[in-house]
Amino acid sequence: MINVIGFDADDTLWHNEVLYHRAKRDVVGILSGYRQPENIQAHLDQTEVANIPYYGYGIKSFTLSMIETAVHVSEGQVSAEEINQIIAIAKKMLSAPVDLVDGVKETLETISSAYPLVLITKGDHFEQERKIKISGIAHHFRYYEIVSEKSTATYLQILKKYCIDPTSFLMVGNSLRSDILPVLKIGGQAVHIPNEQTWFHENAEQHELSDFEYREISGISQLPGLIEKNFT
Amino acid sequence: MINVIGFDADDTLWHNEVLYHRAKRDVVGILSGYRQPENIQAHLDQTEVANIPYYGYGIKSFTLSMIETAVHVSEGQVSAEEINQIIAIAKKMLSAPVDLVDGVKETLETISSAYPLVLITKGDHFEQERKIKISGIAHHFRYYEIVSEKSTATYLQILKKYCIDPTSFLMVGNSLRSDILPVLKIGGQAVHIPNEQTWFHENAEQHELSDFEYREISGISQLPGLIEKNFT
Repeated sequence: MINVIGFDADDTLWHNEVLYHRAKRDVVGILSGYRQPENIQAHLDQTEVANIPYYGYGIKSFTLSMIETAVHVSEGQVSAEEINQIIAIAKKMLSAPVDLVDGVKETLETISSAYPLVLITKGDHFEQERKIKISGIAHHFRYYEIVSEKSTATYLQILKKYCIDPTSFLMVGNSLRSDILPVLKIGGQAVHIPNEQTWFHENAEQHELSDFEYREISGISQLPGLIEKNFT
Repeated sequence: MINVIGFDADDTLWHNEVLYHRAKRDVVGILSGYRQPENIQAHLDQTEVANIPYYGYGIKSFTLSMIETAVHVSEGQVSAEEINQIIAIAKKMLSAPVDLVDGVKETLETISSAYPLVLITKGDHFEQERKIKISGIAHHFRYYEIVSEKSTATYLQILKKYCIDPTSFLMVGNSLRSDILPVLKIGGQAVHIPNEQTWFHENAEQHELSDFEYREISGISQLPGLIEKNFT
């Protein structure tokens, strides 16, 4: 029996990674005179992950990593105008409209009439708050939590705060690493909705998941049916 | 009668603006070949404030504004090496130790034995969480809240969340704009501890404050005495 349902936001409720993909394509284009595209892309991926302890997640962090990559792959030759173009990419990302995933509105409408919903999203607070505000779906959620990392400790803390028993909690999201694995580890239930745009950093090792049972659906519209069949 | 005491963190409990001052001095040095120091400084100040709607507060936002300023004041001549130096300033700021203001430890020790304390700080979540964690004083606070803006709405929301009556709430901080004025506006009490390093953006118009009464002390060590004398 499920009492409360948690939802991830980025690439579960609205498209997000696509903005990063476009930005990466654009920055590779800007720097194409200096290196091969795959080389630039690989350098950016490495820089991004290496900078998480300094910057955390989000567009501002990503932008600083793009700029650092530009300096390195150009071997110090990147021009001020090219840096300026990277900053323009960032500002465009930071003011992009929220593009909901197909079926989200209707699904939340259905589910929120039967269960209290909690939005649990990772990332930069300022950026996530803006998206929640303009998403048009915030009213479906009883609470929202923006966290720095989605670890087992984070989930335990949130569930404790709202007096939710982990065994009666179901989490829905696209990231095996952040939405599924930690929730299963604390005794909760999870539904995975894969998204081809998921950031490589969000993958989990398959062997880590092999001890656990969780559901997978191809689209959020299948969620009400799945809940009715399996969790009531 | 006061039941709960709120504290600002940056430049109230620990030094913060000094890191920005040093960074500004350093970036002015890096760019000194392009413009006069005052000119660079003024451009940076303007860029920082203009970028708040895009970036919010914090070191990452500040760094992107430093880079944007570098591109502009150099008229597109800034070198990749100079951009690299600016990124190095940012990483140094982001990993700087927390330097407590004199008297903070003893004062919190005294006051937390008599009142529940709430830390209310504005800024980048990731950056503020790191500082709270390594500050060594987090255990004195019953709750902490990291917010995007310290408006009257923000304070009302926090006080409601913890069932605190505004009239029984006292806020302590260095920013007239963020710590004093909004709390007075919702019927709370406030103690201002001026800090010469306060960011110009945190000043309030004197006429806005003229309708209200609040206390001012020159150092946090005077707080227990002031509370005993005025709020018990």
